[in-house]
Amino acid sequence: MSYVDMSTSELETLKAALETEYASHCAKGLSLNMARGKPGCDQLALSLPMLDELTSSSDLIAEDGTDCRNYGVMDGIAEAKRLMGEVMEHDPANVCVFGNSSLNIMFDLVTAGYTHGYLGSTPWCKLPEVKWLCPVPGYDRHFGITESYGIEMIPISMNENGPDMDEIERLVAEDDSIKGIWCVPQYANPTGITYSDETVHRLAEMPCAASDFRIFWDNAYCVHHLYDDEREHVADIAAACEAAGNPNRYFKFASTSKVTLPGAGIAAVAASDENIAEIKARVGVQTVGYDKMNQLRHVRFLKDAAGVDALMKKHAAIIRPKFELVARMLEEGLGNEGIATWTNPVGGYFVSFDGLEGTAKRTVELAKKAGVTMTGAGATWPYKQDPRDTNIRIAPTLPPLSELQQAMEVFVCCVKLAAVEVLLAK
Amino acid sequence: MSYVDMSTSELETLKAALETEYASHCAKGLSLNMARGKPGCDQLALSLPMLDELTSSSDLIAEDGTDCRNYGVMDGIAEAKRLMGEVMEHDPANVCVFGNSSLNIMFDLVTAGYTHGYLGSTPWCKLPEVKWLCPVPGYDRHFGITESYGIEMIPISMNENGPDMDEIERLVAEDDSIKGIWCVPQYANPTGITYSDETVHRLAEMPCAASDFRIFWDNAYCVHHLYDDEREHVADIAAACEAAGNPNRYFKFASTSKVTLPGAGIAAVAASDENIAEIKARVGVQTVGYDKMNQLRHVRFLKDAAGVDALMKKHAAIIRPKFELVARMLEEGLGNEGIATWTNPVGGYFVSFDGLEGTAKRTVELAKKAGVTMTGAGATWPYKQDPRDTNIRIAPTLPPLSELQQAMEVFVCCVKLAAVEVLLAK
Repeated sequence: MSYVDMSTSELETLKAALETEYASHCAKGLSLNMARGKPGCDQLALSLPMLDELTSSSDLIAEDGTDCRNYGVMDGIAEAKRLMGEVMEHDPANVCVFGNSSLNIMFDLVTAGYTHGYLGSTPWCKLPEVKWLCPVPGYDRHFGITESYGIEMIPISMNENGPDMDEIERLVAEDDSIKGIWCVPQYANPTGITYSDETVHRLAEMPCAASDFRIFWDNAYCVHHLYDDEREHVADIAAACEAAGNPNRYFKFASTSKVTLPGAGIAAVAASDENIAEIKARVGVQTVGYDKMNQLRHVRFLKDAAGVDALMKKHAAIIRPKFELVARMLEEGLGNEGIATWTNPVGGYFVSFDGLEGTAKRTVELAKKAGVTMTGAGATWPYKQDPRDTNIRIAPTLPPLSELQQAMEVFVCCVKLAAVEVLLAK
Repeated sequence: MSYVDMSTSELETLKAALETEYASHCAKGLSLNMARGKPGCDQLALSLPMLDELTSSSDLIAEDGTDCRNYGVMDGIAEAKRLMGEVMEHDPANVCVFGNSSLNIMFDLVTAGYTHGYLGSTPWCKLPEVKWLCPVPGYDRHFGITESYGIEMIPISMNENGPDMDEIERLVAEDDSIKGIWCVPQYANPTGITYSDETVHRLAEMPCAASDFRIFWDNAYCVHHLYDDEREHVADIAAACEAAGNPNRYFKFASTSKVTLPGAGIAAVAASDENIAEIKARVGVQTVGYDKMNQLRHVRFLKDAAGVDALMKKHAAIIRPKFELVARMLEEGLGNEGIATWTNPVGGYFVSFDGLEGTAKRTVELAKKAGVTMTGAGATWPYKQDPRDTNIRIAPTLPPLSELQQAMEVFVCCVKLAAVEVLLAK
């Protein structure tokens, strides 16, 4: 029976039962963490053989003769550029392989727009206002970067095809202070949806008042399929932008953070000739170069896109049961109550959950008190302000299955309790 | 006989002889590189056992339980902070260990001053002008950073005690647009001198018109002694600033680039409580964290400051003969000609050479044509403009001894030829 059809006395009876259940969860003294999209220990173990690729007796010379032990090479060794080019579907000549964090590359590129401007445009620090489009729910660390530069973030609602293109086209056509958009185009964080071909082409083709408008195309989950027979694949923004006569409109990002070892992977940016030339010039000032040893270690281990795919199938075998457990427990616990919706992604790292209006914060708070740490409610919105307070990001990968089951039992109970509290307060 | 005492005809006779010698060098078809301060192959080999410290069967958990394979920890694992704290003579709590490049940390901190300001001060991008003090000769990559932000660089002459403190005190007392100074305080790049205690204390104590004035203390060569019995040691800028009531005036930098593997080392910044808090807050936006695996690899290999010192003695045994060869060949070839001076450092990576006025560019050009690549003349000055065109940085570490000898023969010949050309043109 849907909660919204219940009478006050029915809700009060239900509340008492839920509070009893909640107390029993609290009594267990749990300490479970579903806050971040972290791989579990069994996933990390998959890449440990990578450490044996470079030892004191290894050949440490890259294929073009570069000694990976010494200074030199700003844009990545050739074989790492080729590997990431395959993964990112981009000409390796226009791929730069840098350090361990694609987020750091994004930060540096927003910074470059702010301090120097792109390709001769006015640096944003010299403009009275700068705005940014933020599909919601989205990735909190993206929003953190633009917030740190005082850039006004405009939430754009997501639908099953990606962000609301009608709204985006309307905004960018008239407002030249809008300088960019955050996109996780495949298995999006947290909704899990993949942008439709039409969305990709409209983003590439739309008239923009700002000539320095940039699509930050964070294809973090491009190889993160959960099912072999239900793979999604986002159209290439680079090809679309080039065909539309807007070759400089995008920066593509990827990393091996959730392929090999998070924090010890390699990250890359792909872009147009002009953008890459500007990125290389800046990096030549910024650093002495990135860790070529780790680039070599990765290429020796992963080899090519086929090697990446084979490894990702092993990841999928480990995390697929976790996503299926979450889907089953949400369906069993909340399928008939009319108080929640959620996504059932076929790739990526997250499930996006929406409860009744005004319940997300309370749900996360209840779970926390019962020993289950979720991603903070509001985190999926700019400024951490979810205006309807409904969205919660579920990250199922870190806990072992048995702990995940316990955590989801607690979560479902908290969702129900928060819903009843809100309905009774009306 | 000093060249300046020679008659025109003597100079012309000499010139003909030098041209013959130069032609014989050119005929050898050499290809030797002394452009950058890169370790030689035998130095790189010293750190290869480090690669065996982390294998697929290693314990990859840091001492506080952190799993170095996964996300998390923004300021470095505890044991890496302790190691770098020992090397930098700083409380590990106020040391952040980041990625592979201390230059990148410096770039990020100049950027932070430009975009956000330090500790509440006005961001430099909002000021009409910003200036910086640049002791000369100095490090070209330092100057490249400040140049990239349009910061006006003021050359400060170096003497045997460090930069000219009278000039610095005069400038910073009156001009609040001067926001910082680049310092390589021990075995300076390229002069090899170590700042005197008085210099350190005057830098710490001097009244500055700008409250956000910062000393960028790049102690790149703090453990790079050539001789056990002639070690120099710069006074601690942190202690001096704190004692002077200016605890936030400095950022200290160091890395293992020339200890283990350049480009694959670890780098750190040390600062005051307030500065470190601000650095940590920014890094939390900038990245998902740095490579903890490489931090762990370094600590397992180097262990502590004593381990670093033992390794540096092995480096010294390899490069000391190279420095001694350079000193001997300069003395033998140019000791009595009155056309050059140079430094005889007891640590660091460079020899600073000064020829007659107006000869440095020509000397480097002649050497290049004879197959010997030196650091570009002018590189040691802001904007690559050495106003008297005298200074050349000699980097003896990369070539094997036999090649170094060939290169120095060519160099000495080119110095003489350029000098004679200039004297004849007068």
